[in-house]
Amino acid sequence: MTRNEILSAYQFRHACKSFDAKKTISEDDFHLIMETARLSPSSFGFEPWKFLVVENASFKEKLKELTWGGQGQIPTASHIVICLARKTPSMKYDSDYILNFMKNVQKLPEDIVDLKGGFYKKFQEEDFKLLESERSLFDWSCKQCYIALGNMMTTAALVGIDSCPMEGFDRDGVEALLTSEASVDPNKYGVAFMVAFGYRETEPMEKTRQALSEIMDVI
Amino acid sequence: MTRNEILSAYQFRHACKSFDAKKTISEDDFHLIMETARLSPSSFGFEPWKFLVVENASFKEKLKELTWGGQGQIPTASHIVICLARKTPSMKYDSDYILNFMKNVQKLPEDIVDLKGGFYKKFQEEDFKLLESERSLFDWSCKQCYIALGNMMTTAALVGIDSCPMEGFDRDGVEALLTSEASVDPNKYGVAFMVAFGYRETEPMEKTRQALSEIMDVI
Repeated sequence: MTRNEILSAYQFRHACKSFDAKKTISEDDFHLIMETARLSPSSFGFEPWKFLVVENASFKEKLKELTWGGQGQIPTASHIVICLARKTPSMKYDSDYILNFMKNVQKLPEDIVDLKGGFYKKFQEEDFKLLESERSLFDWSCKQCYIALGNMMTTAALVGIDSCPMEGFDRDGVEALLTSEASVDPNKYGVAFMVAFGYRETEPMEKTRQALSEIMDVI
Repeated sequence: MTRNEILSAYQFRHACKSFDAKKTISEDDFHLIMETARLSPSSFGFEPWKFLVVENASFKEKLKELTWGGQGQIPTASHIVICLARKTPSMKYDSDYILNFMKNVQKLPEDIVDLKGGFYKKFQEEDFKLLESERSLFDWSCKQCYIALGNMMTTAALVGIDSCPMEGFDRDGVEALLTSEASVDPNKYGVAFMVAFGYRETEPMEKTRQALSEIMDVI
């Protein structure tokens, strides 16, 4: 793939406000998008995410009500993904989730589990001070989810699929809906973001960005 | 580009712990990586980031001291980027930065500036409650930066360049160093992450990830 082809994909991606409701993403393409979310890196490799694909029509209707007026994305998208981020009970350094993750997903030997666990504790307590509040730790989980978000949208663009990342919704409302209708435990997970995928109906406005010279400096 | 070629790039990417110090990324490739950071989406399109490319040898040496022992990345990387995220003085809904951004970067007409500004205020105050603390707003800026992080690493992988995202450092120390040696205003910016780019010296261990069925559910 040439540099120009790569750049074209990033130029192609835009926050698509309304999709062509008649077009559906193929199973293979959607699987590709999710697979690149799965392969995304996260701090310590702890994958503090869960991806909920919204298919239920009545859930989708209620979700629409909780997003900002004119969210043409929800009713017209081919696929909607709600990304959940893990909270303190599973992300704190001494949680069962972390210990189990190092042993059974990362398959680390016991001495490395101790070593990595020690680094993780120091990182949370001192370097990034994540234990200052429940929110700090949750926000840190969310940050990792945004890496996956970038990758999902880029992968989509590479195969000609449009996307729209969404933060414009009543987060408390969406979390309450997830608790009551999708058995999401609000103590374990919070909503990081939502993202819609589909095919554009109309061409977007020209992208606006600061010049590279304004956002980049050399030390 | 086929689905398999895209997946290969995501498989290729890993947290490269040590680079081949003899190899340098070409100007064109590094520009491509930064250009895809620049084209990354951010909430409201407000680009709350600044990218510092570390070239100065003595700065690099001091930076190494502030990162965790064995950070083979700093001395061996071809390029190191420190990403700064904007804080309250420029990201709060009523800041001059935001107003100027809507008018002069996004070139929005006055009535749209008012409308978007209103949404942004509601978003910060109510939907995502970002004004609870200075940290909440800063962490939200950081989240946007992590989208660019994902994209930079993916772009690098697409052209055969390795990367390593870094959170393992003394954040206060790095921020103090940036203030004293690179004139970074600590009231305006904090460090979101660092990322190193270069070429691998050895092949990585196999990637560990949970299965898609463990991180994805359908509602």
